[in-house]
Amino acid sequence: MTDSDDRAARPRRGPAANAELALLLEVAGTPKPGNVDRERDLTDLHFEQFLAGAVGARPGLKRATRASFGEAFETAVAGMSQQDGGNTQFGCLLLLVPLVAATPDRDAPTRESVRRVCAETDTADAVGFYRAFEHVDVAVADPPDGMEPLDVRRGADAVPALRERGVTMAELMADAAPHDANAREWTEGFPRTFRAADGIVADDGPVTDRAARAFLGLLAEAPDTLVATEHGEEVAQEVSARAAEIDDREAARSWATELVDRGINPGTTADLTAAALYVALARGVSP
Amino acid sequence: MTDSDDRAARPRRGPAANAELALLLEVAGTPKPGNVDRERDLTDLHFEQFLAGAVGARPGLKRATRASFGEAFETAVAGMSQQDGGNTQFGCLLLLVPLVAATPDRDAPTRESVRRVCAETDTADAVGFYRAFEHVDVAVADPPDGMEPLDVRRGADAVPALRERGVTMAELMADAAPHDANAREWTEGFPRTFRAADGIVADDGPVTDRAARAFLGLLAEAPDTLVATEHGEEVAQEVSARAAEIDDREAARSWATELVDRGINPGTTADLTAAALYVALARGVSP
Repeated sequence: MTDSDDRAARPRRGPAANAELALLLEVAGTPKPGNVDRERDLTDLHFEQFLAGAVGARPGLKRATRASFGEAFETAVAGMSQQDGGNTQFGCLLLLVPLVAATPDRDAPTRESVRRVCAETDTADAVGFYRAFEHVDVAVADPPDGMEPLDVRRGADAVPALRERGVTMAELMADAAPHDANAREWTEGFPRTFRAADGIVADDGPVTDRAARAFLGLLAEAPDTLVATEHGEEVAQEVSARAAEIDDREAARSWATELVDRGINPGTTADLTAAALYVALARGVSP
Repeated sequence: MTDSDDRAARPRRGPAANAELALLLEVAGTPKPGNVDRERDLTDLHFEQFLAGAVGARPGLKRATRASFGEAFETAVAGMSQQDGGNTQFGCLLLLVPLVAATPDRDAPTRESVRRVCAETDTADAVGFYRAFEHVDVAVADPPDGMEPLDVRRGADAVPALRERGVTMAELMADAAPHDANAREWTEGFPRTFRAADGIVADDGPVTDRAARAFLGLLAEAPDTLVATEHGEEVAQEVSARAAEIDDREAARSWATELVDRGINPGTTADLTAAALYVALARGVSP
């Protein structure tokens, strides 16, 4: 009889599998006030749609290890959209695709390796990013005056303007950084992602509980971009201030109900949580 | 601005992605009395470990479309074991691997196509099946007198005896069929799987709710093999009789608490539920 000391060596998960698992652990982490989680669906967005989104994203995440950002990202978003909930994990993928590309040979990514991946993106990558908007509706702010031709919501229609102006993905993210927390990760070498990953590695207990704590910490740290886009900067600041006061699971649960009732969904903070989970998994944290 | 009538064509999930999603929807379906589900962990077996098991199984599920059963199954189980919960989905994979192999060109499998896959398995497939037991502890009954050399729990140590006797995978399943519901699916062309899949397709609402209803129907239909192995045939029959009386979600929830307190885990019925979900997804049901 085979006993457990005598097990065959356990193969390690590769980067694409870790990235998919990060998406699943993120949505399973509970309570994550205002978001879909293991205990809560939103009216038009269900837990099972996040499961399907994660499964669908896997081929694009796999492609991230060997193809350009633009190609991998569009593939990942197209796959993610194979469910009826619409945009489940667009922002997560915007962070995960460069992190996977920055994870060579199953080592963990570093701030330096992901900074390099992001800095090297070009106009073809920007084209892939715009094409990804063809697959799903994403909540974004209106573009500044004069930038309407490059409104991301135009999707592939904006590609000629992108090419004509020679805009790179790195430039797009630099332009968005002042008002978009995910773009800021791109331009600054993912500081919040890696800080939150340190916290997840140092934490203990089930990974989904660590994810929920990381989410609250990230939300307390800075206003959520999606909340600011949908409800204004003042509400986003109020939500972050309140997150800083939540000190136990029960308080988080009842606050979750309040946020859902108000239609407040800190989705960008969930993106950062998924990215931090990926880095923690790559460093050896495992369910 | 891209509007939703104008979306890029949504690529369809392939068989391996559908099989992984079936594993995820199975564990997320709630209430599934006695099992881990979206609302409940067991003491030593957690929801997040099923997520990791499903993610880890994907390369083996992918291999099922082009490699032999034995090779694909061992790969799937090795990948599934990349988490700390031990055996999460061994029985599910025993059903899913032939179903995926019987799903050519993204069509749905049929009873005839999966019957053919199972009938054609040989001694090399039996070897892969035994090797899979090296990766994880699986609860199985003791072998009959004289069959100790072929005890599956011996794992790779039993391979010389398997080869010497020329035992095929199809024969192993035929021998196990009288006392093992999964083996019975193998020998009979998956009758319960396809019947439950018909139910899931005809049902409506979230797929995870359909999964929970399919689970209860399957449990009411016949005693669970794992319950019989761990607690005896009489308990397994009592559990199925009780399942037939459960008529709403609240009753199922309180029964779930009772089963968990008694340590009763109808795991084989969960395997059949995952297999039925796979067939339903292949037929176009989607979250």
